[in-house]
Amino acid sequence: MAQFPNTLKQAIEWLSTFGKDSDGGVTRTLYSKTWREAQDALKKWMEGRGFHTYYDSIGNLFGRLPSDDAEAPTILVGSHVDTVKSGGKYDGAYGVIAGVLAINHLYEKFGKPKMNLEVVSLCEEEGSRFPIACWGSGMMTGVYSLNDVVGLMDSEGVNFLDAMKESGFHCQNYSLRNNLHAFIELHIEQGPSLEKLDKEIGIVQTIVGQKRFRITVKGETNHAGTTLMKWRKDPLHGAVKMILSLYEASMQYDDNLVATVGQLFVAPNVPNVIPGQVDFTIDARHPVESTLIHFYERFSREFFLLGKELGLEVELSKWHEVLPVQMDSKLNDKVLNICCEKGISYHVMNSGAGHDAQLFTRICPAAIIFVPSRAGISHSPFEYTSHQDLETGLKVLTQLLYELAY
Amino acid sequence: MAQFPNTLKQAIEWLSTFGKDSDGGVTRTLYSKTWREAQDALKKWMEGRGFHTYYDSIGNLFGRLPSDDAEAPTILVGSHVDTVKSGGKYDGAYGVIAGVLAINHLYEKFGKPKMNLEVVSLCEEEGSRFPIACWGSGMMTGVYSLNDVVGLMDSEGVNFLDAMKESGFHCQNYSLRNNLHAFIELHIEQGPSLEKLDKEIGIVQTIVGQKRFRITVKGETNHAGTTLMKWRKDPLHGAVKMILSLYEASMQYDDNLVATVGQLFVAPNVPNVIPGQVDFTIDARHPVESTLIHFYERFSREFFLLGKELGLEVELSKWHEVLPVQMDSKLNDKVLNICCEKGISYHVMNSGAGHDAQLFTRICPAAIIFVPSRAGISHSPFEYTSHQDLETGLKVLTQLLYELAY
Repeated sequence: MAQFPNTLKQAIEWLSTFGKDSDGGVTRTLYSKTWREAQDALKKWMEGRGFHTYYDSIGNLFGRLPSDDAEAPTILVGSHVDTVKSGGKYDGAYGVIAGVLAINHLYEKFGKPKMNLEVVSLCEEEGSRFPIACWGSGMMTGVYSLNDVVGLMDSEGVNFLDAMKESGFHCQNYSLRNNLHAFIELHIEQGPSLEKLDKEIGIVQTIVGQKRFRITVKGETNHAGTTLMKWRKDPLHGAVKMILSLYEASMQYDDNLVATVGQLFVAPNVPNVIPGQVDFTIDARHPVESTLIHFYERFSREFFLLGKELGLEVELSKWHEVLPVQMDSKLNDKVLNICCEKGISYHVMNSGAGHDAQLFTRICPAAIIFVPSRAGISHSPFEYTSHQDLETGLKVLTQLLYELAY
Repeated sequence: MAQFPNTLKQAIEWLSTFGKDSDGGVTRTLYSKTWREAQDALKKWMEGRGFHTYYDSIGNLFGRLPSDDAEAPTILVGSHVDTVKSGGKYDGAYGVIAGVLAINHLYEKFGKPKMNLEVVSLCEEEGSRFPIACWGSGMMTGVYSLNDVVGLMDSEGVNFLDAMKESGFHCQNYSLRNNLHAFIELHIEQGPSLEKLDKEIGIVQTIVGQKRFRITVKGETNHAGTTLMKWRKDPLHGAVKMILSLYEASMQYDDNLVATVGQLFVAPNVPNVIPGQVDFTIDARHPVESTLIHFYERFSREFFLLGKELGLEVELSKWHEVLPVQMDSKLNDKVLNICCEKGISYHVMNSGAGHDAQLFTRICPAAIIFVPSRAGISHSPFEYTSHQDLETGLKVLTQLLYELAY
């Protein structure tokens, strides 16, 4: 099968041709044509390498190399095949491809494993087409059921269930995945820590907790020329004071606390009109839940004080929350030992981003292994990890699977 | 002519029926159907009261009561007939209607004046349909020529010249208005000063100067979860510091200095992404040009310092500028004396908003007389001035015209 790739580098490039944009990015959103083509191509690629392949009824693709022991548990390795709009070629894809190559290599070199080895190309993680994220791993682990997608629409008004059916999947009698011994996800860091610290491998201890808030500040819109400063109730004046106090408060905690105002709307947003309302979001993250709660209580108290001081109405609501998740310490110890033995530099760290592996912690021990992302950039055509770093990650994964399954 | 109004109150209500919105606002944008109907109705109303009426070739409507002296100069009084979208019924309309009633009253009571008395319903002042403001007065005073509107489009892609022709005007051989002795504009304040100070009449000394700026702050967009605070180049962090320093600097000047950030855009404006760019506008006004320049130099210096401190790129450009305009002091003295003689409370003030009268200062002495606006609200269905305040303004205007023309 000459059209299929043989090396890690070739395979990354090959998979990125499915959904390639003119700007060099990759767009492969859930249940789109390019998404389906990518999954089908991965399926054929795995079959060519002796994997038993199958889809589940929502579009997660599996490739299995079975043990002789019919009762043996399974070690699942993989990541997601979907991308954001104009994303990079490593996010998700790397973990799937490395899984195939690692298992294939072990099988060729050592024959049948004692435990079943299986790779999964999860259908969806990004939440970039429909307003739901980690759909693939969420169904496998019982976090979601079909009810969670009923009524969801994409930006063009296409219904989730229609898109799924159109793509050939019908979500029938879906049952939780069982008999998993471990889930391993190899992924690019999507942050700058490994590059800044000059480390080859990141071992994820905790996936940080997230809390997202929406803040509305209401004042009085008025004519920019005829309203003296002292008579104004300008919600933007309040909002900038709040945002500054948020940034300053975030500096009072350890480095792991991050707080971001990513979205801000001014109304009516006209140059010669004093704003009447400002809405903004806060995304706050930390690996320790109590620290996040302390931070939230601190900045929200300050917001209401500032509002009162300036005669503004302040509303604050939490609209999204994820608790911190601990990854499996035994698996992490194994990764750490592998790095030590092979002379690979590593960094034990937190993940500021969510990943499929955190959903698997509900049903089995799970680990995430990071490789560096150049300049921390991801979700962009500029996403890049050097070939050497990719190979190092594959080497660690292969050794880990060997130690677990043979 | 039973359908035409007889009192000031009736006339305000009557004119507001042309372009009345379901929310109680009035929409009468330049060269629209309702705009033309309003001008034609005003024309007939004036003719019914003995005025000689005519349009100029861009749609300014005039009603004239001539003197016997063919060489006598003209005292022109009036304001604009157009409105913003869903505006109020007083802004502009009051000055036109009061002009008609004042001249009509004087003519009936004292007969022919020594100077010609003329009212103008200017075609456009608001700039709410096409991106040009004070079109009517600008053409009469030589500020604009036909070239200034070539290529202008409204939000629906209609060409300015096509809209004008469709409305019946062809702008042929347009020449500057000459032989004007004075221009008088009676207008609602559109600010809260008179109400807050409990004064009946505002005498405008200066129309403030305006400078408008666009500021772009560029940083590095990044993942909100994986980028430590100390590694960020967040343009919103810079922007909120800049805006706060702007507000604080504005407090260091006298009350007449106002600075507004009315428009702000964050990009990419996504809750879980650190912004890469923030754009905002500044509208700064003051009656003294040198103060405005000092203020601008002060805040712009601070902006560049803040940008440097945070590793951000800052661009600042001035995109709009109006120099302060002095209204005629002799006319103002007359108004002040009239108020004193009639026991009417007054306030000598600046106008923070622009008006047609400021364009007429190029060709003749000009005055603006304000009446209070409830809560300073205008450009809104909630715009309101009490009947008593409207009548007081009409009384002052009538007396002023009497003193000038008889």
